[in-house]
Amino acid sequence: MNSPRTDALHVVALAGGVGGAKLATGLQAALPPGRLTVIVNTGDDFEHWGLHICPDIDTVIYNLAGIHNPETGWGRADESFTVLNEMEKLGGEVWFRIGDRDLATHLRRTEWLRQGLPLTEITARLRRMWGIPTQVLPMSDDPVHTLVHTDEGDLPFQHYFVRRQCEPILVDLTFVGADKARIPASVEEALAQADLIVLCPSNPYLSIDPILSVADMRQRLRALPVPKLAVTPIVAGQALKGPAAKMMRELGEMSSPLTVVDHYGDLLDGFVLDERDAALEEAVVLPTLVTDTIMTDTASKERLAREILAFARTLAQELSGQPSDLGEAP
Amino acid sequence: MNSPRTDALHVVALAGGVGGAKLATGLQAALPPGRLTVIVNTGDDFEHWGLHICPDIDTVIYNLAGIHNPETGWGRADESFTVLNEMEKLGGEVWFRIGDRDLATHLRRTEWLRQGLPLTEITARLRRMWGIPTQVLPMSDDPVHTLVHTDEGDLPFQHYFVRRQCEPILVDLTFVGADKARIPASVEEALAQADLIVLCPSNPYLSIDPILSVADMRQRLRALPVPKLAVTPIVAGQALKGPAAKMMRELGEMSSPLTVVDHYGDLLDGFVLDERDAALEEAVVLPTLVTDTIMTDTASKERLAREILAFARTLAQELSGQPSDLGEAP
Repeated sequence: MNSPRTDALHVVALAGGVGGAKLATGLQAALPPGRLTVIVNTGDDFEHWGLHICPDIDTVIYNLAGIHNPETGWGRADESFTVLNEMEKLGGEVWFRIGDRDLATHLRRTEWLRQGLPLTEITARLRRMWGIPTQVLPMSDDPVHTLVHTDEGDLPFQHYFVRRQCEPILVDLTFVGADKARIPASVEEALAQADLIVLCPSNPYLSIDPILSVADMRQRLRALPVPKLAVTPIVAGQALKGPAAKMMRELGEMSSPLTVVDHYGDLLDGFVLDERDAALEEAVVLPTLVTDTIMTDTASKERLAREILAFARTLAQELSGQPSDLGEAP
Repeated sequence: MNSPRTDALHVVALAGGVGGAKLATGLQAALPPGRLTVIVNTGDDFEHWGLHICPDIDTVIYNLAGIHNPETGWGRADESFTVLNEMEKLGGEVWFRIGDRDLATHLRRTEWLRQGLPLTEITARLRRMWGIPTQVLPMSDDPVHTLVHTDEGDLPFQHYFVRRQCEPILVDLTFVGADKARIPASVEEALAQADLIVLCPSNPYLSIDPILSVADMRQRLRALPVPKLAVTPIVAGQALKGPAAKMMRELGEMSSPLTVVDHYGDLLDGFVLDERDAALEEAVVLPTLVTDTIMTDTASKERLAREILAFARTLAQELSGQPSDLGEAP
């Protein structure tokens, strides 16, 4: 297997919105420029105001560029809502609050999509315009729509997540189009170069599962002879942000890091558990890093990232002593 | 012919941008609610930032709603340019300066067009949302594009007008699509009800000619048995706004109100000349109102409108003594 030395390490992170963007920012700070690739969920993408909106890609880009709203974690810093207020006067939908600065991204992306550019190329343009050294890749250039089956019926993702604030009870999820969606060449190249795969502390159901559902992505990741780690999105029984814990309970599971480990199953070679859940370490049936996973500022993001990279290095050394276990596809 | 009593008068005004919008505002103030219809040039319409922009319709609506920028005459009052500044960072085109408030109009219109609504219905929605009692009608729901032939080659209208600030020398104009464009039913109804047609002090070549070029619009107007007046856009050899005088010289004409009279030809039954050009009255071969045509504020817009309505009433009385001249189509 490849040797995960930090100086030459290629890291691929799978991310959704705010939690994933935070760890991606830490990894970007901890790695030399160009060594990080973030594969981002596009199951939340939707049309609004006639524009194509990619909430998770934007959250990741804004965070990596340091231009995100530090209070919400998503949207732009120093944002204004002049267009939104005007749209309200004109009877436009305002439940999804698009700020003026954020709007420019949606306008450019929509213009480029109409010109026939793939989302991968558009995302590359945007991240380069913001001077981001990290590759940000949509999970697919083909449309995948997360459909949320609830006790109140089926809801498109943004209607469940933003308009209804995740209030309806989750029954199941479908990633419409995922079976026909193709893995972009850029994602394939990043996976081929990867020395380490990190599943960010994003919602497993809403953010990571859509990525894993694209074509044979889950099987491809499993077959990669490199360490694959997940960072817990659940701390002390709660999701740090979003509805992950609520969703687990509604699916009849414990809102616990163990549910996350169980959910990802044989995809993982290691797990990052929060120190507040240290008592659960023995129950995690994988090599485990126990640390403070709560990222409140730039320093804590980078510290967590460095600890994860060190953990991955140890793990790779351990795994390299058993080449037969990792050398063949499971 | 219909009797142009002010109390029951139906007035149809043909307008382009700022000059037309000013007189339309005056006519709206001088007439009972619902008695004015403005047919607006759409030859300037274009796609920008992936949005469908109708500069003249917006100028007319913003002026009639009293929400226009009083300094420029176009765009919104209290405007900000947050999105534009952000678009510039993302490599977007910023030579056409779209403000944040104005942008909401383009977003709504484009959304509705993509839903399949005709421009006539969209324009009706917008003017009702702004509480405007005047009907604002696009000259056609079909696309017509003003193409400016210049000494530097052919330029789409906005590139000539905004991007190049009308610098290239005018050779000729083509209204692409005008022959195939249809007159909307709402325009036909307004013309059937009209007691008076007013050609606003807009640029004859860029604003009024495109309207006249739609299908058989010019012939229809000529055939209407009601007074048809034009208000001069040229005062003391100059255009009050825009390139009309420059264009006249480039076409080998005098920059004079007489050129306007000559240009409209047998379409007109009367002309409104500025008092600064009173010396030209005898050379105008039509019944002429000489007055102050410069509209600087609400009061002067309404005063000019009332004078025009009174002039039209006199004219109609004179004309009604000669029914044979107006009763048959020329």
